[in-house]
Amino acid sequence: PEIWRESEREGQMWCVHPDRPEPLDLHLGMFLPTLLNQATPEQMDRFFMPAWNLEIVGTYAQTEMGHGTHLRGLETTATYDPATQEFVLNSPTISSIKWWPGGLGKTSNHAVVLAQLYTQGNCHGLHAFIVPIRDMNTHVPLPGIVVGDIGPKFGFSEVDNGFLKLENVRIPRENMLMKYAKVEPDGTYVKPPSAKLTYGTMVFIRSMIVGESARALAKSCTIAIRYSSVRHQSEIRPGEPEPQILDYQTQQYKLFPLLAMAYAFTFVGQYMSQTYQRISGDINEGDFSELPELHALSAGLKAFTTWETNSAIEVCRMSCGGHGYSRSSALPDIYVNFTPTCTYEGENTVMMLQTARYLVKSYQRAMAGQQLSGTVSYLNEAEHQRVQPQPVAARPTVVDINDLASLVEVYKLRAAILVALAAKSIQQELQRRKSPEDAWNNSAIDLVRASDAHCHYVVVKLFTDKLGEIGDTAIHSVMSTLALLYALHGITKNSGDFLQAGLLNVPQVLQISIRIKELLAQLRPNAVALVDSFDLHDKKLNSVLGRYDGNVYDHMFEWARRSPLNATEVHESFHKYLKPLRSKL
Amino acid sequence: PEIWRESEREGQMWCVHPDRPEPLDLHLGMFLPTLLNQATPEQMDRFFMPAWNLEIVGTYAQTEMGHGTHLRGLETTATYDPATQEFVLNSPTISSIKWWPGGLGKTSNHAVVLAQLYTQGNCHGLHAFIVPIRDMNTHVPLPGIVVGDIGPKFGFSEVDNGFLKLENVRIPRENMLMKYAKVEPDGTYVKPPSAKLTYGTMVFIRSMIVGESARALAKSCTIAIRYSSVRHQSEIRPGEPEPQILDYQTQQYKLFPLLAMAYAFTFVGQYMSQTYQRISGDINEGDFSELPELHALSAGLKAFTTWETNSAIEVCRMSCGGHGYSRSSALPDIYVNFTPTCTYEGENTVMMLQTARYLVKSYQRAMAGQQLSGTVSYLNEAEHQRVQPQPVAARPTVVDINDLASLVEVYKLRAAILVALAAKSIQQELQRRKSPEDAWNNSAIDLVRASDAHCHYVVVKLFTDKLGEIGDTAIHSVMSTLALLYALHGITKNSGDFLQAGLLNVPQVLQISIRIKELLAQLRPNAVALVDSFDLHDKKLNSVLGRYDGNVYDHMFEWARRSPLNATEVHESFHKYLKPLRSKL
Repeated sequence: PEIWRESEREGQMWCVHPDRPEPLDLHLGMFLPTLLNQATPEQMDRFFMPAWNLEIVGTYAQTEMGHGTHLRGLETTATYDPATQEFVLNSPTISSIKWWPGGLGKTSNHAVVLAQLYTQGNCHGLHAFIVPIRDMNTHVPLPGIVVGDIGPKFGFSEVDNGFLKLENVRIPRENMLMKYAKVEPDGTYVKPPSAKLTYGTMVFIRSMIVGESARALAKSCTIAIRYSSVRHQSEIRPGEPEPQILDYQTQQYKLFPLLAMAYAFTFVGQYMSQTYQRISGDINEGDFSELPELHALSAGLKAFTTWETNSAIEVCRMSCGGHGYSRSSALPDIYVNFTPTCTYEGENTVMMLQTARYLVKSYQRAMAGQQLSGTVSYLNEAEHQRVQPQPVAARPTVVDINDLASLVEVYKLRAAILVALAAKSIQQELQRRKSPEDAWNNSAIDLVRASDAHCHYVVVKLFTDKLGEIGDTAIHSVMSTLALLYALHGITKNSGDFLQAGLLNVPQVLQISIRIKELLAQLRPNAVALVDSFDLHDKKLNSVLGRYDGNVYDHMFEWARRSPLNATEVHESFHKYLKPLRSKL
Repeated sequence: PEIWRESEREGQMWCVHPDRPEPLDLHLGMFLPTLLNQATPEQMDRFFMPAWNLEIVGTYAQTEMGHGTHLRGLETTATYDPATQEFVLNSPTISSIKWWPGGLGKTSNHAVVLAQLYTQGNCHGLHAFIVPIRDMNTHVPLPGIVVGDIGPKFGFSEVDNGFLKLENVRIPRENMLMKYAKVEPDGTYVKPPSAKLTYGTMVFIRSMIVGESARALAKSCTIAIRYSSVRHQSEIRPGEPEPQILDYQTQQYKLFPLLAMAYAFTFVGQYMSQTYQRISGDINEGDFSELPELHALSAGLKAFTTWETNSAIEVCRMSCGGHGYSRSSALPDIYVNFTPTCTYEGENTVMMLQTARYLVKSYQRAMAGQQLSGTVSYLNEAEHQRVQPQPVAARPTVVDINDLASLVEVYKLRAAILVALAAKSIQQELQRRKSPEDAWNNSAIDLVRASDAHCHYVVVKLFTDKLGEIGDTAIHSVMSTLALLYALHGITKNSGDFLQAGLLNVPQVLQISIRIKELLAQLRPNAVALVDSFDLHDKKLNSVLGRYDGNVYDHMFEWARRSPLNATEVHESFHKYLKPLRSKL
């Protein structure tokens, strides 16, 4: 399930400005790809070239005012009328009005509309229809079409996200996208060969969002860390000049774990992309066996990385003091453009619960003696099946806090324990005679926590695996430091989990705090080089604070002077409001 | 130390639109109050009535491009010239350009400028000067004045935050605000009677921000909780209608702890306001004895409550799904207007460290046998002085997780232990022959953590104390549930601290998770009533999602149709861009 599709990155290569949302994003990123994937050859002839030439400008209208994540709840109807061989589209309620699609409000003259298909008295669920919405010459809305902009949003001001109300809108039968499912002229419905194909697209997009998290985080870290080495503030030692703010331990503690996270997510993004490539090869050959695992992994990692990145961008912004609030820093725009990833393409909490469903099922299968493979294979191991949610005083604490392999192991055990704890909660609810659905809902907090721990384990593991691929000793050394910081910082932030499970003892947790301070000091000299290596050109960063040359203040002044309000020395508001007001008082 | 003053709530009663930032905010909130506090009677005659009548429109120019929190670092100079009895004001560098003051860019014709005062060859530190910046009739900038808008920001689009560069600007000696410090005609400097008076204002403003956090959080919770009872989504039980999203345990877990926090911060805000009133009475009678404690408390609670609220607003926004991104929800505006409180009036990390300085000093005094009073008196108690950062297996765990007094006690012990841990870290650094300043910086992570724990304790304690004042049994009951949820949720979020210190054991932490779920279910029927009782009128909320009548979708449609982009059916962009582009392809 997904809501909003206006920033699909599937079509990133099609975008005019890849880092800025704009009205044609959905035309390029969703409308054209949907034609490519779901149109018949005849439909391609009719629609693709006109769309390619921007005569047809299209969007993708799925989400409704009252319905997002839960696709089955969508209310828009497309009822087949065999008398005229047309579909009649309707928005039966206010809550069924299509809402949010980018470019729908003012730009598009066509939309792919997702609607419940009714034919011969039966509902066959959601299908996609090409609906002309504005006159091709005058751009005036067609009869039965109520269309417009949904009003100002958090960011995305350049995009006319729109609404669409359909009032008995008739389209020819041939406008249903019929590459897979079909409606015959007499109204007979023909099922698609497999439902798993659309499922694949969803997985692809979520996998891509992981990489998008890495990019947004890399940008934010680049800006914050460069600026922190330019900005001088307060004093550490009295009488000495104000130090670079990056010399404050608190600033390092804010930023370096995020820098480590940016590298971690970069590697996870690469892994997801490679895994998708590999598995989609299998899918093309009809082998869907790895799809459920990839689906679970992409859902959870989409949620994990976007939530983490969402908070991290704001930490970066606020670590820049007042100037982080200026749009010259680029950080406000990075935030408002990124934050929707937490909601679209599957709301994050729902995503975490989808992953949890896979984890709990896998756990139950392992308990039943089945052999699991892939990222959940840790649930196999006999010793973990005996894992208790409560700490075992006897558990040997042989964890070496400086050894990544050892830390991967504790993250793995933590995940195993929290999956078991969630499964146990469901079990207890069932024993209290709750229905399976209520048992699930009453365990949802534990389930999300288990998914989170699973994703965290995967990230630490992939980061650690990546180190094995690095040949250069110097690079290996600094990357190991980052990986260690990522792993240890994650432990301190969740130390309750590790202590509770008896995976670490109190002296170890104290040692970890001390070790983190050492790692921060160790990373300090390399910090700027580590963000430079993300290789984000000034033009792409578009941030006065994050300039490569560090010449922040001169350029901030120059940027400010170009502010639209400075076009005239005396703004019109003086003559229009201030002066008249004065004479009235 | 503070940066930015554009949203001072000192002058909230003066604001035209109390909940919306605007160009006159600093005139009303800072310029007029500064005159009242620091102007001589002669200056009042010259400036106050013209300012009251909006002939003089003023702002407060303190922060510079390169200097914020560290006031001593400000570079603007005011050099007295006895020959003409004038001050000559200069911005000697780019980084010394005044930056951020609200209304400075285009609206104001005067500014209170904070500058380093030089007279008779000596610098006497920061003083305030009234500087005319634009011609009173033409509004054209005066000679030597370079003034303008600093460009677009995160929110605050209605405010012309400005820059001001001073190039040998001469003002009469009488324009220095001389109620306290003075410069005689011959250039002799006369010190103010006490530096603690301005210190009082700072404390007042920070105390007020605590109340502001409560209001922003109450608004956000009202919107999110009301909407969550209107929105239906997905399914818990198959075949049944989509449930209100507030019935999902995960949604309750997101929102109810924030609802509890909104009540907690409301009571803390009331306490801070009352305490300030009481202590300012003492201050007027020359008794400054309680000021250091109030200073430490206001700094820490300002940081604690604004950070918590900042994250909480975003949780509320994202809990509303896609519609939380629409400005019709009001949540994006609440966020962008609130988030600067984390930075202005003292950057939060700096604030936490100021509180930590007071805590460590108090701890050292207690260790030296002195008797402490006030909120830090817990550092007195002999048993806490013996407190070890490591858990004492022998510590009797008599904590009753259902008893608030018992929970206040564990929060208190956690604070005591973390203060001791931070003090110990400093001690260890000193033993390693680090300078006191480096020892402080190398312990900064621990110090912030100690302050945070102290503030958390204060909040739990004040919430618990408040219950004693509630006579009505039913209200007492639901408020106790909220207080318990606040306390227990804080423990699970920081369970590592409590386990590490041996204050709670593993079974108790597990019990707490279960208890929290019960409390969520218990609060569910009262949730809407609990936000209704914040009594925020629809006009004040200004949120389609948060409407009292719950009629969300109709009004969202209506709101959208009034979007500026919908003024015409065919937007000019079609004729200007889309059509010409089409003919080119």
